[in-house]
Amino acid sequence: MTQRIINFNPGPCALPLPALQTAQAELLDFQGTGMSIMEISHRSKEYEAVHNEAKSLILEHLGFDAAEWDVLFLGGGAHLQFFMVPYNFLGDGRKADYVNTGTWSKGAIKEARLLFPEAIREAASTEADRFDHVPRWEEIEVDPQAAYVHLTSNNTIFGTQWPTLPTKSPVPVFVDMSSDFLARRIDGQAIDLIYAGAQKNAGPAGVTIVVLRKGAVERCRKGISAMLSYKTHLDANSLYNTPPCFSIYMVRNVMRWIRDSGGIDAIEAANRKKGELLYGCLDRNPGFFKPHARPDSRSLMNVTFRLPSEEFEAKLIADAKKAGFQGLKGHRSVGGIRVSMYNAISVANIEALVSFLEEFARTV
Amino acid sequence: MTQRIINFNPGPCALPLPALQTAQAELLDFQGTGMSIMEISHRSKEYEAVHNEAKSLILEHLGFDAAEWDVLFLGGGAHLQFFMVPYNFLGDGRKADYVNTGTWSKGAIKEARLLFPEAIREAASTEADRFDHVPRWEEIEVDPQAAYVHLTSNNTIFGTQWPTLPTKSPVPVFVDMSSDFLARRIDGQAIDLIYAGAQKNAGPAGVTIVVLRKGAVERCRKGISAMLSYKTHLDANSLYNTPPCFSIYMVRNVMRWIRDSGGIDAIEAANRKKGELLYGCLDRNPGFFKPHARPDSRSLMNVTFRLPSEEFEAKLIADAKKAGFQGLKGHRSVGGIRVSMYNAISVANIEALVSFLEEFARTV
Repeated sequence: MTQRIINFNPGPCALPLPALQTAQAELLDFQGTGMSIMEISHRSKEYEAVHNEAKSLILEHLGFDAAEWDVLFLGGGAHLQFFMVPYNFLGDGRKADYVNTGTWSKGAIKEARLLFPEAIREAASTEADRFDHVPRWEEIEVDPQAAYVHLTSNNTIFGTQWPTLPTKSPVPVFVDMSSDFLARRIDGQAIDLIYAGAQKNAGPAGVTIVVLRKGAVERCRKGISAMLSYKTHLDANSLYNTPPCFSIYMVRNVMRWIRDSGGIDAIEAANRKKGELLYGCLDRNPGFFKPHARPDSRSLMNVTFRLPSEEFEAKLIADAKKAGFQGLKGHRSVGGIRVSMYNAISVANIEALVSFLEEFARTV
Repeated sequence: MTQRIINFNPGPCALPLPALQTAQAELLDFQGTGMSIMEISHRSKEYEAVHNEAKSLILEHLGFDAAEWDVLFLGGGAHLQFFMVPYNFLGDGRKADYVNTGTWSKGAIKEARLLFPEAIREAASTEADRFDHVPRWEEIEVDPQAAYVHLTSNNTIFGTQWPTLPTKSPVPVFVDMSSDFLARRIDGQAIDLIYAGAQKNAGPAGVTIVVLRKGAVERCRKGISAMLSYKTHLDANSLYNTPPCFSIYMVRNVMRWIRDSGGIDAIEAANRKKGELLYGCLDRNPGFFKPHARPDSRSLMNVTFRLPSEEFEAKLIADAKKAGFQGLKGHRSVGGIRVSMYNAISVANIEALVSFLEEFARTV
């Protein structure tokens, strides 16, 4: 019998057990084909069914109409999207606004500026406050001439998250949703593009999901590299070249698990419950647990906090590991503790962690 | 009991059964961690051991000295290398020579020309002969001012392969080895860069392996996108961002299988034996089987041939499927039959196919 631990890794991270069990059961023989899903042609009807089911379920869980949205599966990670977004949507004198809420926002800004140094404006930043919150959307003056405004919806390292995404914007909103994709219901009316590395809520590393409003690619620059053009992949249903088939298959399995778990609303309810439990524990011990994020920007995905000393932090991580809780060390750039509790982490997992934390605070 | 078929798919394609069995056995608990390999941090010591073992075994099987060569694991497929090669190694007025031996060579040339329209010269082409052979290296006049000369070592669609790779060249040789990577011993002395999508001989789709001579990146252009820079990935041991971990893990498993099979020389011997068996069968029935490739350019990976009529071809494919042979349909651009017999296809598999083909030719 396999002994599974409780895995709070920030990504790659815990995946839903049923998604893994399905993969394991059929790893040598996918649906009676006599082949592994890894051995099947990406042009076969068996693979295309998986590919298209993954797309459909993503839109279904987002609550996005398939008549208005497309889904792409790309390689290279969200980092490649830092490049592809400006590469496709800027040039020809166009400019863009970026909101800087942490390390990944900065990465996106840096790549965009390498490409178009004069085109990128930081419309807002919370760096002066050590990224302990996200700005209020209403207070940002977005350039109405910008091709898009780019946000990072959740900041894994600092543990902040936009409480809601903008529903009104003078220009299309593009969102890096790598770390809170499909964690809650969102309103997509102001959004034209979402991208997300799969390896938090959607599947294993190796595929990036891009959700694009239909028609948006018409604004993409012409004459660009075929492989780095959204239009290429859109026109080919992400089968222009061999896609990362197994990662997409795993995304399909995870999307089925979301469906079987009651859909996005049930996922969101569990995430909110997990947040109440864990932040509740931190707030009940204010002298001991010091959360990094301001209350109005608290992430439901990554909860970051410090203890009174680094020694306590080291002891907490070591004791937690003995108790079966893995991956609680904060990112090297901020230190402390980070609890990453993506969709596959259950309410029961957080209840268990909270018991451990309460006991630790009481007895250490 | 799993019923596995004989899988002649051109890629994704058959993988060694032991590589898949290992993955299946430990899919829910990788080496006692209590986590799937898909759930483990790419910064963990467990994952890094897999990553580095895969790199070492690749160099070992290539017979390349780790003091002189580096290995990168990148996303985006070999198609992204069509872009990255010129993006990194051209610009600043530099130019490159390309040898056009088929569809993938043309793809590489097309992407390079989108980027640097004036910089790319087709140094040789066999298109006028419907790509039924590769040119003789000695007859190509490589521009001594070129930054590199680009070859495609094996042409999946036309079934041709360079009988040997150049060992002397006035400029560094860059090779797209996607479809015959680790199929035979090669001499790397004239080569500076090899790239290969994993999904033929090295693993599943989702990772591209780049083998780079140390120091070559010093010639790369400065100020380019971080994600699309070889130097970025080299400096970070391919861990600049989250890599396609599971695909790399599968590459590790396949590299172990090559080692356990007796290494590259045993693999090459099996591939040569498979070629003798299958081409022998075709040559014994010259009125019935019409190979596309000229004898001096025959591929040991993809064997392409026509039958006297399309009706015969359709019947062969249908009868073969009933007999347990999958994936024999030729590429849509050339038609006919294609037998892709990458490393994971055994001599016994080809013996079985040859019996079937002989019987088919005799009785149809």
